[in-house]
Amino acid sequence: MTSSVVDRRGLLHFLLASGAYLALPRTTLASPPYTWAKREIERQHDETIQRILSWIDAPAIASLDTGYEASCNLTMQLLRDAGFQRVNKIETSGKPGIFAILDAGAPRTVGLYFMYDVMPADPKEWSSPPFAAALVDKPGMGKSIVGRGAANQKGPEGTFLAALHAFRSAGRRPPVNLVLIAEGEEEIGSPHIAQLVHEPAVLAALKKCSCIFMPDAGQNLAGTVQLTLGAKGIVEVELVCSAQRWGRGAEHDLHSGYKAIVDSPTWHLVEALDTLVSPDGSRPAIDGFFDHVRPLSERDAAIIARAASAPDAEEVLKKALAVNRWTDDANFSAALKMLANDPTINIEALIAGYTGTGSKTILPSRAIARLDLRLVPDMSAKEILSKLRDHLDKRGFGDIEIRDLGSYDPTETSEDSVLIRGTKAIYALDRVPFTVSPRLPSSWPGYIFTGEPLHLPAGFIGIGHGSGAHAPDEYLLVESVLSGVAGIDEATLFYVKLLYELATIR
Amino acid sequence: MTSSVVDRRGLLHFLLASGAYLALPRTTLASPPYTWAKREIERQHDETIQRILSWIDAPAIASLDTGYEASCNLTMQLLRDAGFQRVNKIETSGKPGIFAILDAGAPRTVGLYFMYDVMPADPKEWSSPPFAAALVDKPGMGKSIVGRGAANQKGPEGTFLAALHAFRSAGRRPPVNLVLIAEGEEEIGSPHIAQLVHEPAVLAALKKCSCIFMPDAGQNLAGTVQLTLGAKGIVEVELVCSAQRWGRGAEHDLHSGYKAIVDSPTWHLVEALDTLVSPDGSRPAIDGFFDHVRPLSERDAAIIARAASAPDAEEVLKKALAVNRWTDDANFSAALKMLANDPTINIEALIAGYTGTGSKTILPSRAIARLDLRLVPDMSAKEILSKLRDHLDKRGFGDIEIRDLGSYDPTETSEDSVLIRGTKAIYALDRVPFTVSPRLPSSWPGYIFTGEPLHLPAGFIGIGHGSGAHAPDEYLLVESVLSGVAGIDEATLFYVKLLYELATIR
Repeated sequence: MTSSVVDRRGLLHFLLASGAYLALPRTTLASPPYTWAKREIERQHDETIQRILSWIDAPAIASLDTGYEASCNLTMQLLRDAGFQRVNKIETSGKPGIFAILDAGAPRTVGLYFMYDVMPADPKEWSSPPFAAALVDKPGMGKSIVGRGAANQKGPEGTFLAALHAFRSAGRRPPVNLVLIAEGEEEIGSPHIAQLVHEPAVLAALKKCSCIFMPDAGQNLAGTVQLTLGAKGIVEVELVCSAQRWGRGAEHDLHSGYKAIVDSPTWHLVEALDTLVSPDGSRPAIDGFFDHVRPLSERDAAIIARAASAPDAEEVLKKALAVNRWTDDANFSAALKMLANDPTINIEALIAGYTGTGSKTILPSRAIARLDLRLVPDMSAKEILSKLRDHLDKRGFGDIEIRDLGSYDPTETSEDSVLIRGTKAIYALDRVPFTVSPRLPSSWPGYIFTGEPLHLPAGFIGIGHGSGAHAPDEYLLVESVLSGVAGIDEATLFYVKLLYELATIR
Repeated sequence: MTSSVVDRRGLLHFLLASGAYLALPRTTLASPPYTWAKREIERQHDETIQRILSWIDAPAIASLDTGYEASCNLTMQLLRDAGFQRVNKIETSGKPGIFAILDAGAPRTVGLYFMYDVMPADPKEWSSPPFAAALVDKPGMGKSIVGRGAANQKGPEGTFLAALHAFRSAGRRPPVNLVLIAEGEEEIGSPHIAQLVHEPAVLAALKKCSCIFMPDAGQNLAGTVQLTLGAKGIVEVELVCSAQRWGRGAEHDLHSGYKAIVDSPTWHLVEALDTLVSPDGSRPAIDGFFDHVRPLSERDAAIIARAASAPDAEEVLKKALAVNRWTDDANFSAALKMLANDPTINIEALIAGYTGTGSKTILPSRAIARLDLRLVPDMSAKEILSKLRDHLDKRGFGDIEIRDLGSYDPTETSEDSVLIRGTKAIYALDRVPFTVSPRLPSSWPGYIFTGEPLHLPAGFIGIGHGSGAHAPDEYLLVESVLSGVAGIDEATLFYVKLLYELATIR
């Protein structure tokens, strides 16, 4: 099951890989040779790989509450080793975050968003142990690190740290100061990231940044990177209907023969769910849900129209998703607009009664629906949580508990921001093909940087290739034999170049 | 969870235990002393217990597909030991059944319905190993056999076999011939009982019977037995909504970000479920569902009215069920009528997406609802399965698969039948208080005996006390210190008397 589920950011990496790249912009840089950097990076190649392997072998897994002490400490040590002079653990109500500063005495400061937690992994599903990372030769691709976190996100983060090691060993100061935050709960939806980012010292440091990014091995197998300018927000909730709160039904499961005289919280939940969507289940029907939906900009519509016209793009996507038709039988152009700008209500899980093999004739005392609602600008998570509550209350479902599993606003970064322009410049320099996505249909908590009070451009930046985030045999390609796809040394050099670009871009 | 779920027959055993027993009928028997039987039963007391203990230690569990060879063979041997001259294994498409005949050269023949399978048991939840049965002294109750099957059903069946051993060792022929069938799939809903019963030799033998019963330790802690005259039928189905059959949605789970353009089988299922019930979820709304519901007879209504008027009965039941109010806020008399004669639709399980700890933001490719529908006379399982299909088809849910998990018709036995009159006579003789239930709200496949072509009176008959069917620490009281509650010897003697009564009753 999980193997077909892409991670929240990997979504759409493959989309539009078949053509119609956007025109490469002019670079703002002359192209220096970076001979020193190349030499240091190549010299440290094995060391970089070893560092990532060791990091993978110390996993912190939020959903299982394991490994935090060792993993957080190792991450802090890796930051110190890479040149951060100040590395602090920041306690939150959940898992600790990390706040680090590298003061290069530079006029400009750039932010970095790291995560040190990883998804769980079942060794039985892996061909190589997930938490004893290995270098594996992947036929037709090249040498790869295989282990949980190789792609998401220790591999790319370790690649970025390798760039700092190159500066260090070459005796050069990075061209920008760095402010880094690392969280330990990314894989459970970053429930305490606000506590970390809004810690006064952290906030003050981030305010000095011109932008913030998370290192990412963003190339697909054809070498194309997608630059995303935003992502939908999310309201992830558990609707719990219990006899106890309802005041009807039985407080424990009963033999289902009693259904004749005892009410069913499961039916009550089904009735409530039914009111949330249009009769065909495709459209949200929560009162006032669309009030603040901002229409797509002309620029975004143009990007999407262009993407939709790419030859084979629709067939490629349908095949990848194993889908025969889009919602409402929309054409591809309409579908891509919906993907970018339609808010949604999805049932991610239904849980009631005995869910194992066989069956049990019981009347369950409670039933659960887990929903995720995706939000577009200018909706807010707070607004939608409140509207969901009101909607249920008004229809006689006031007893149904809404448990917030992790909700946050949409995020947007301007195509004209220094982060996007700077990244495009290096892509142009390195002749990396890229596409632009106005808005990911998935979510990440970029709002914490792009929203109040920071208003920073924020995104996922980097080249190289990895895959299998949230799936077995997660990998990061480190010695690529694929044409146009970077190995770890080229991906490291990309960050060196990017930091120079961000130091000078106007 | 399971500990609060009573087994399909145990349901309502406790109901109305607080008073208002029906008047005891006149016995048709003079009361012979049965000195020979008492002597033999007492002499064999330890042997009887050992026989049950060994039987429990050889479990056959249908849902786990374990133990059949040994358990079926042992059961057959126990029948031979008890005097059945012919004992055959009857193969079915599922687990084998057993067909046995004890020809006593008597004018009359009585049927016996046995089961040799048991529910699974998790030893961790037991204070005594479930499959290494033990004799345990239960404070305030007396010595009890503890083990899976002690109450449901090896204990009571072993008690009946002890009666046959008493005849044997006393050198007496039983006063009736016996035709016995034993099935090995009772705990998964008797899916192949028709194959067993309709096997020509079996059917021919059963046609000679005047009635059929399953031995049961039917007394509650106050010593009261409930005589049930019928049970609801059941349609247990799994509604499966998959993208594959629907032709919409994705054939594997997707990141839920795609909900904007990919349809959700889970929402489709919720929409379908919503049409099956009244807006408040309490009443079935399948087209034509009530067409053949026969109103309660005057006699049944009178029995129920009497039961409803018993002091404290409503409070006792509400407390036992952990329920504050009945459906529709019905009064107790109305509720008991609903329990006896309202057909129902219950959701026993909802299963979609990732149902474990934490959450996964996925768009599930399929969703499942397991329903059980309880039927009253003159509804039939075939009719309701067909109406459910038509109902869904007519509303655009033709793609939703209906998997029959085990469905059968209601069962009824007349209060005037030899089985019920004979049993009442022995209860009267032994001064066993009893209540009559027109119809169990739960189900058992009695239709196979009471329906076409056999038309036999059928029920659960016996005294003694056991509990914990389907739960941990299942037990059968064998040496009772409870006033008015039979131990295993008295329960054995009851069957001796019952066979004489059934041999002579007019």
